[in-house]
Amino acid sequence: MEPEVSVIRIALDAMGGDDAPRSPVEGAVDAIRQSGVHVVLVGKEPEIDAELRRLEVPADVGRRLEVVHAEQVVEMDDSPIAPLRRKRQSSIRIGAELVRDGRAHALVSAGNTGAAMVAAKSVIGVADGVTRPALATTLPTEKGWVVLLDVGANVDTSPEQLREFAVMGTLFSQEIVGVDNPKVGLLSIGEEQGKGNEAVKQAFEGIERAGVNFIGNVEGGDIFKGTSDVVVCDGFVGNIVLKSAEALAEMMFHMIRDEIMKSPLTRLGGGLAKPAMLRFRARTAYDEFGGAPLLGLNAGCFIAHGRSNPKAMQNAILKAHSFADAHVDERISRRLARIADAPAEEIEQVEAS
Amino acid sequence: MEPEVSVIRIALDAMGGDDAPRSPVEGAVDAIRQSGVHVVLVGKEPEIDAELRRLEVPADVGRRLEVVHAEQVVEMDDSPIAPLRRKRQSSIRIGAELVRDGRAHALVSAGNTGAAMVAAKSVIGVADGVTRPALATTLPTEKGWVVLLDVGANVDTSPEQLREFAVMGTLFSQEIVGVDNPKVGLLSIGEEQGKGNEAVKQAFEGIERAGVNFIGNVEGGDIFKGTSDVVVCDGFVGNIVLKSAEALAEMMFHMIRDEIMKSPLTRLGGGLAKPAMLRFRARTAYDEFGGAPLLGLNAGCFIAHGRSNPKAMQNAILKAHSFADAHVDERISRRLARIADAPAEEIEQVEAS
Repeated sequence: MEPEVSVIRIALDAMGGDDAPRSPVEGAVDAIRQSGVHVVLVGKEPEIDAELRRLEVPADVGRRLEVVHAEQVVEMDDSPIAPLRRKRQSSIRIGAELVRDGRAHALVSAGNTGAAMVAAKSVIGVADGVTRPALATTLPTEKGWVVLLDVGANVDTSPEQLREFAVMGTLFSQEIVGVDNPKVGLLSIGEEQGKGNEAVKQAFEGIERAGVNFIGNVEGGDIFKGTSDVVVCDGFVGNIVLKSAEALAEMMFHMIRDEIMKSPLTRLGGGLAKPAMLRFRARTAYDEFGGAPLLGLNAGCFIAHGRSNPKAMQNAILKAHSFADAHVDERISRRLARIADAPAEEIEQVEAS
Repeated sequence: MEPEVSVIRIALDAMGGDDAPRSPVEGAVDAIRQSGVHVVLVGKEPEIDAELRRLEVPADVGRRLEVVHAEQVVEMDDSPIAPLRRKRQSSIRIGAELVRDGRAHALVSAGNTGAAMVAAKSVIGVADGVTRPALATTLPTEKGWVVLLDVGANVDTSPEQLREFAVMGTLFSQEIVGVDNPKVGLLSIGEEQGKGNEAVKQAFEGIERAGVNFIGNVEGGDIFKGTSDVVVCDGFVGNIVLKSAEALAEMMFHMIRDEIMKSPLTRLGGGLAKPAMLRFRARTAYDEFGGAPLLGLNAGCFIAHGRSNPKAMQNAILKAHSFADAHVDERISRRLARIADAPAEEIEQVEAS
């Protein structure tokens, strides 16, 4: 069963996420309806079939679906290395194997993030030219979307790795977010070159010579101001920024709702303003952007939020489809291999060609 | 002019902040009215006098005010070392000298943060037992207030420094925020011991033995969930978290307002709900908590936001007053000196005594 030339197949971990297999299967059906992508559902076959029956999936969709049985499921509290040890028959590992073996072009999972990263890195493999894959997230800003990476795949990142992140983020922003010549910022605590910790100070010059549209250091506030299209940082910092932002947004919603409920008049106002709040939430529902790509592998891999609904799963599958279609993985690898080989002064020329 | 025994004098940089001397002077007058604190206004005497005339300050307030003339002003775009070099006659430096010389008990400035930190560290001096002072901020959470430190005074913090931050944050939370036996969390990217970067992994055991109520690692989301009362981190991370949170909150307000303005019905709703929004903003107006203390000096030093209004300045002065009154500076120094001297196994006993 080799993929047909013109067809893109996404391996989907049908058992990943809080209400799996419901959300993954429903998301897959919707994605197929919308784009003609083919999806390989990986997981417990009887449960997946029950879900397909429940959805009354018609034949024109069904023919674009496949099911590959996987006996095991990596749970949220399993160790990240479970797919390599106790759970070699898990849906997440078998999904990664399908991609490795060319039976699918990209992997999507809303399961245990650590386990998905481990399975993807070790089974799909790290691309040539890449030192460390990076997990990227796409966040809403005052001006559009920003790609923030790394958000947790690496800690104590070296200056060379930060440079790789700049290149990977640029290609992702360009090909998937759709930004022309994306501006890249290096996350620090001051705009001037020379501000920041050692890793950032040392990374500055390397990124300047990486053939990306580098605008220099950006500060924490710049992430949401949309000063740049790509923000590069160590995974320790990125993960903390991402999780604190999620929690702050949630806290603000809770507090606003509490205050609105305190009097009949503000309750009425809140009711009337509700459509605006819903529009706002839709504009900023970053978890519906389609999951976080793990960049720098031999194929696309998108890790969706554990509480992804069918819409979020559908978006993740569509992003994985675009990623595979644009060969972002190969372009990252080629670009990084060139930078690693070329003497510093030639890089910009290489990039321009 | 030695301070009287029962009187606490705050040296206030009257030229610091976007609309200085208006906000500092007005804030000082309000703080005196509320608490009987004495304030030494440091800055350009004619401008300060004009401001006092404008406010028609009565004699009972005036007698608790002093003015010390300073010829120079450190601007927002001046180098942080300006108070040590070109601007030795600046209000921020002269304010620090008043504290050093015992003519005031604590310093408050809404000026150039870097310059205020440099002046405070070099003139007021770092306390015995403290390796590096830390800038702390107080943020609203789902459950109250959290003290986050360091937020920018240090980068590439050592494990020993993180331990000092835990102790300093604990004393500040206890004495100034008013939390009984504050819970201390170490900011990381996973809750289990052993998750995080090298500095955090190495800091864990030291904090366990620092005689604070250490609850272990906390994640980015825990800051705003209020999981702990004190969150300890490197200044690079803390600064980025703080600035990204400020920008995210602002972005959310802008977007919500935009959406509300889009239809007459939601506009009406927004108008009716406005009192709730104002209550919400008051609950979360962290810049009105009173500025960020620079902990670990020989006296209190509070650095307020550049756009502080009179209310914010008033609060900063009142916090500085409480800080001096509770001798938080001396208690930090004593506690850290004990930890540095004591063999590990004796620390908890020392703390309990």
